[in-house]
Amino acid sequence: MHKILVAIATFGLTSAAFAQADTTMMREIYRQSLTKGEAYDDLRYLTKEIGHRIAGSDRAEKAVKWSESLMKTLPFDRVYLQDVTVPYWDRGAPEKAIIKENQDTLQVLALGGSVGTPKGGLEAEVLEIEYLSELQNHGEDVQGKIVFVNKPWDESLVETGTAYGLNTAQRSRGPAAVAKFGGVAYLFRSLSSSTRDDFPHTGGTRYVEGIDSIPAMAISVVSAERLHSALQHNPKAKVYLEQHSGWKGPVQTHNVIAEWRGTEKPDEIITIGGHIDSWDVGEGAHDNGTGTMGTLDAIRTLMKLGYKPKHTIRLVFYMNEENGVHGSTRYGELAAQNKEKIIAAIESDAGGFAPRGFDIKASRASVDWIQATWKPLFEQQYWVSRFLEGSPGVDSGIWAEQFPNTVMFNFRPDPHRYFDLHHTAKDVFEAVDRRELQSGVAAIASLLYLIDSQIDQLPK
Amino acid sequence: MHKILVAIATFGLTSAAFAQADTTMMREIYRQSLTKGEAYDDLRYLTKEIGHRIAGSDRAEKAVKWSESLMKTLPFDRVYLQDVTVPYWDRGAPEKAIIKENQDTLQVLALGGSVGTPKGGLEAEVLEIEYLSELQNHGEDVQGKIVFVNKPWDESLVETGTAYGLNTAQRSRGPAAVAKFGGVAYLFRSLSSSTRDDFPHTGGTRYVEGIDSIPAMAISVVSAERLHSALQHNPKAKVYLEQHSGWKGPVQTHNVIAEWRGTEKPDEIITIGGHIDSWDVGEGAHDNGTGTMGTLDAIRTLMKLGYKPKHTIRLVFYMNEENGVHGSTRYGELAAQNKEKIIAAIESDAGGFAPRGFDIKASRASVDWIQATWKPLFEQQYWVSRFLEGSPGVDSGIWAEQFPNTVMFNFRPDPHRYFDLHHTAKDVFEAVDRRELQSGVAAIASLLYLIDSQIDQLPK
Repeated sequence: MHKILVAIATFGLTSAAFAQADTTMMREIYRQSLTKGEAYDDLRYLTKEIGHRIAGSDRAEKAVKWSESLMKTLPFDRVYLQDVTVPYWDRGAPEKAIIKENQDTLQVLALGGSVGTPKGGLEAEVLEIEYLSELQNHGEDVQGKIVFVNKPWDESLVETGTAYGLNTAQRSRGPAAVAKFGGVAYLFRSLSSSTRDDFPHTGGTRYVEGIDSIPAMAISVVSAERLHSALQHNPKAKVYLEQHSGWKGPVQTHNVIAEWRGTEKPDEIITIGGHIDSWDVGEGAHDNGTGTMGTLDAIRTLMKLGYKPKHTIRLVFYMNEENGVHGSTRYGELAAQNKEKIIAAIESDAGGFAPRGFDIKASRASVDWIQATWKPLFEQQYWVSRFLEGSPGVDSGIWAEQFPNTVMFNFRPDPHRYFDLHHTAKDVFEAVDRRELQSGVAAIASLLYLIDSQIDQLPK
Repeated sequence: MHKILVAIATFGLTSAAFAQADTTMMREIYRQSLTKGEAYDDLRYLTKEIGHRIAGSDRAEKAVKWSESLMKTLPFDRVYLQDVTVPYWDRGAPEKAIIKENQDTLQVLALGGSVGTPKGGLEAEVLEIEYLSELQNHGEDVQGKIVFVNKPWDESLVETGTAYGLNTAQRSRGPAAVAKFGGVAYLFRSLSSSTRDDFPHTGGTRYVEGIDSIPAMAISVVSAERLHSALQHNPKAKVYLEQHSGWKGPVQTHNVIAEWRGTEKPDEIITIGGHIDSWDVGEGAHDNGTGTMGTLDAIRTLMKLGYKPKHTIRLVFYMNEENGVHGSTRYGELAAQNKEKIIAAIESDAGGFAPRGFDIKASRASVDWIQATWKPLFEQQYWVSRFLEGSPGVDSGIWAEQFPNTVMFNFRPDPHRYFDLHHTAKDVFEAVDRRELQSGVAAIASLLYLIDSQIDQLPK
């Protein structure tokens, strides 16, 4: 009995001493990031001097080279590029969509991966539906028509990511489904959380082998409402469409990688990062300039504080998350081939709004342990309180299958405003708040510190 | 033993049934607020059609009358005005502050309550300090000088309210302290969380009887840095100041009150609201248009859902929080005089950003109970997770002393951006996001529902 009490007392003290050290370290991390952090300034360069950067484009390669040089200014042990071959898709000249009878110009953007219209554009009647599943009810009626999927966003969800997910399949599968029924083009109501939004939101789509490709466009919410009204008034109204997009063949580009060697277990790796490519509109500020510049700055924060990692911390800027995920696929292939031991991953690809927490892919016991041990360090003082079991990010998710035991964290900033500007011309530097961004950097740096110093304590 | 098990089973079932009903009700509240809420539209009217509204001004009275008519459109049982006498302070013609030697114009705003400069303005050398406590070291040197308190904001705190509180006493006590040492004017570095901010932030100040009043101004952060540089270059540099502000005597104005009568315990009252006045710059959007329009819309949300309150819900728009708190003082006096039983209060006066939770003034046991029982209803699905012991809002705090047993909730939206625009010309309608505001309305409506339906279960 006496021995047990002593053991408890000792454990209690050790625990308290650990917690005290963590509290002190986190205070220093937050002070450094909020007062001297450089993510915001780096983001300004990425967005204003380079701009949007779709995989395969010259700008994407400029972003790669600039990222590499930026990493080389920091005391990483190794900075290198990892070859990735991507299919380059180019939008071409601006799209057009006009309701013929009143010459009303609709706001549209080609969906990524879409083919162009035939030379001279195309003009056709429009079939408006909410769900692709309605196509079969219309049967032969679909032939020769532009199919317009006008499904409104579910505004009732605070978790806008869920609302987005409810309808992404209709974006990606639409063109093939419509082509199968003989439709000539696809118009898709933008996935926007704002009902007053006249910006089209682009995004990926895909075709199915053996079915002819047809042109596919996103139409803004406000324009979708106008087209709906026009069709109510005249169901035979015709729309003229013109777009010049298409695949331009494979291009060799790169993931950008930097390693900070572990002092105790250099062969055990913590991967942290996000995708460096963006869609080809706006400036890719929240998607995903904040994720790349933020994770880099999280590491820089620890470096500036003189921290020495136990494990190797590897920063990865993935190429081509937006239209192919070839970068993270390649990363996973090589890591598996080299039998690397990746013990944990942090991904940031949900914007640079006020930090709320992390979704965690780990055993139930590990998530419980993190909630009990790490969450209290964040929640009261730093307003970060969401540590829930959930999905890794898209890029980590790609290679998660080969690394089932890697504990994965997906950074979650506030979700309210992200899908107002996601994949649009509105996603620019000015939409990012410095304090919110640097608060997120501090949260990520704190988590990175906790993983590196305490991951061995996680229940198996 | 058998009886105990049955009791536990019954209690368990009842509990679960309650939780199920709460979950359903909250889903309806969120759906109503996010898809059909009207706080944002009401806010547009208040900010764009009425604008800023300092207590005692014609616009404040216009806001009172419009609020009264708005409340009368809803099925309240009683809508009335409560007389409040306020001292009306008027800014007069725009202020001027110019560094004489280079004619550099500084961005300034008179602090609320300040006297004007003598006719023709004043010109004097400047004594720059960080803390008022330094005045005694300077002794007679202060005489005839403009004292410039140039204390930077503590950027390292995520809780910006704490950073604000660190320095408000220097704003309010500065003029009296400086006058006591023979200083001729007071220049105070604005309480802004942004380091790149050229907008002055006004706010209240006060004098002490028996000491001559001197003019007091807030200077923008960027201008404060420029003045600091000028003084580094030439410590004898003079500054010219001109302002035309002053007290214009007492004005009778009003609190605006609406009551929704309880069906079971009409004599037990839940007070909810915030202040309707604002500073006399910008549009008083986040401070406190969102608090008044938001709490009104929270009640409207319950009304639209057909809810019948057990207790009387009383909406109060307090007058004069910003420069005197005469409205809430009067509210407390009358409530005490009438021996009212106010069981709970909700205040909203911290902006309309994404909702994070509520600070709670209640017994430790009650706070624990709320964390265990109500917090789980909010945190995962609605991203509202902060239910901590804390201060009530300023207005509730005024009458809390007379009502020590009232459980008080202070709505806490995200704190990152609030003090970028607080008390400035930047606090306009465009700075409010509809989704964030309506998400907060839903959180407040949900709390109001939980208080009304379950307050009897709170530990004593």
